[in-house]
Amino acid sequence: MAAITEPYRIQLHDTDAAGILFFANQFRIVHDVYERFMGRLGFGFRDRFEKRDFVIPIVHTEADYLRPLRVGDDIEIALSVGRIGRTSFVLNYHLTDLEGQTVGKVSTVHVTIDPEKGTKIELPDDFRRKLAEWVKGGD
Amino acid sequence: MAAITEPYRIQLHDTDAAGILFFANQFRIVHDVYERFMGRLGFGFRDRFEKRDFVIPIVHTEADYLRPLRVGDDIEIALSVGRIGRTSFVLNYHLTDLEGQTVGKVSTVHVTIDPEKGTKIELPDDFRRKLAEWVKGGD
Amino acid sequence: MAAITEPYRIQLHDTDAAGILFFANQFRIVHDVYERFMGRLGFGFRDRFEKRDFVIPIVHTEADYLRPLRVGDDIEIALSVGRIGRTSFVLNYHLTDLEGQTVGKVSTVHVTIDPEKGTKIELPDDFRRKLAEWVKGGD
Amino acid sequence: MAAITEPYRIQLHDTDAAGILFFANQFRIVHDVYERFMGRLGFGFRDRFEKRDFVIPIVHTEADYLRPLRVGDDIEIALSVGRIGRTSFVLNYHLTDLEGQTVGKVSTVHVTIDPEKGTKIELPDDFRRKLAEWVKGGD
Repeated sequence: MAAITEPYRIQLHDTDAAGILFFANQFRIVHDVYERFMGRLGFGFRDRFEKRDFVIPIVHTEADYLRPLRVGDDIEIALSVGRIGRTSFVLNYHLTDLEGQTVGKVSTVHVTIDPEKGTKIELPDDFRRKLAEWVKGGD
Repeated sequence: MAAITEPYRIQLHDTDAAGILFFANQFRIVHDVYERFMGRLGFGFRDRFEKRDFVIPIVHTEADYLRPLRVGDDIEIALSVGRIGRTSFVLNYHLTDLEGQTVGKVSTVHVTIDPEKGTKIELPDDFRRKLAEWVKGGD
Repeated sequence: MAAITEPYRIQLHDTDAAGILFFANQFRIVHDVYERFMGRLGFGFRDRFEKRDFVIPIVHTEADYLRPLRVGDDIEIALSVGRIGRTSFVLNYHLTDLEGQTVGKVSTVHVTIDPEKGTKIELPDDFRRKLAEWVKGGD
Repeated sequence: MAAITEPYRIQLHDTDAAGILFFANQFRIVHDVYERFMGRLGFGFRDRFEKRDFVIPIVHTEADYLRPLRVGDDIEIALSVGRIGRTSFVLNYHLTDLEGQTVGKVSTVHVTIDPEKGTKIELPDDFRRKLAEWVKGGD
């Protein structure tokens, strides 16, 4: 069940001379949805950089490209929360066109890091709680 | 007077290690508004690539950066149509924060090109007419 | 064994406000090595777009991020050819810092497509042969 | 006279579905040369972020696009130092193809800022001296 769903239109700069979405840009596009989701959870990126309480870099990611996307194509990006571990969590992104066909998928594995020491730490309790709500729930 | 005004939130990928918007990305951001504007005029980019009737590359651009923009900052981008010449036209972008302060400016000069011959051509009449409506008008 | 190894220095635009490489950019960076490799094989991208004999989009990709990369960091990117199937092949990228430590990994799965019909086709013989040389060999 | 000249090959991700360099990417490309130049002057970007003695954001930029650039095109980028003011300086970039034809131009205006106060400061003496050497000299 999606925690957040956002529309996106493929822009000219997302494409390359092959006429379709350049593969790296699918990662950039879904990251915008992640930023919006974090803001809704009350853990916006600006706060992370200012408070420097914890950072959550991506340590692994995967993507599938199921249909070519061209400039002007409208898609929807649904973010859902996957496994939440002690020091890490997984986010899954499902990209569909307006007919509901899957056009792409992304998943990202994040770890929580102490920004001063650069070492792994447990997910802060309040963040874990907020995140966990979306494992069961959704919109 | 603005032909189209769009909101934008600065995303993580727009920034660099200096903590603020990387200058080249201001051009990418305003181009999205241009694409939306062209769609509204009935001259969406997809059509240009498929019909190959005329293309309108940018031959000159300028930008000012008046205030540093950080991840999560909300801005508004107002596109207005500038001078329309025989084979070229100018678009102006005004970026403001939510207090109405100007944070950046961009202008782009476009020429109309025959995509087969690669030579300058006059602006197609129907496109010129549509574009000209916005020199006087606005939203 | 690497088919090609290229140096790369992390640029400001590769990073974001967190001060390290934005994850999507690791894909962009390794793709440049792929382009250079294809050129060496005699199958440069320009040819693909002009001849339109076959295209080889990426249908799946994965990446690991093992160490944070900052502006000015020098790395080496080694491309090696993985499994070659009937209609697909795998490329692996290994990113190391100047001490030889692995800082990142990427793999990409490509399929060969008839650009006119948009359907999968077998890898052209000459391309397969060239590619296969690098499964055993390398520099 | 150029302070530094670097080769560049247009990559797939530099282009868009129109088949040519996306205009914003010309700025990204020349910025890499600027980073290399700053490193040579002894004022690499990493130092700026770590020492936080002064930062030099771009407050204005302009670009011309004289010829369409396609994937695989080889160009040269020559950076020259323009006017050096009390709190600002200008860099000019000249992009040529291998026949020596100008394909693009960029100029950037930088101001020196105290990173703590966010206010304009005079160019540090040692930096100004290093920069000024290239107004007369060049390679």
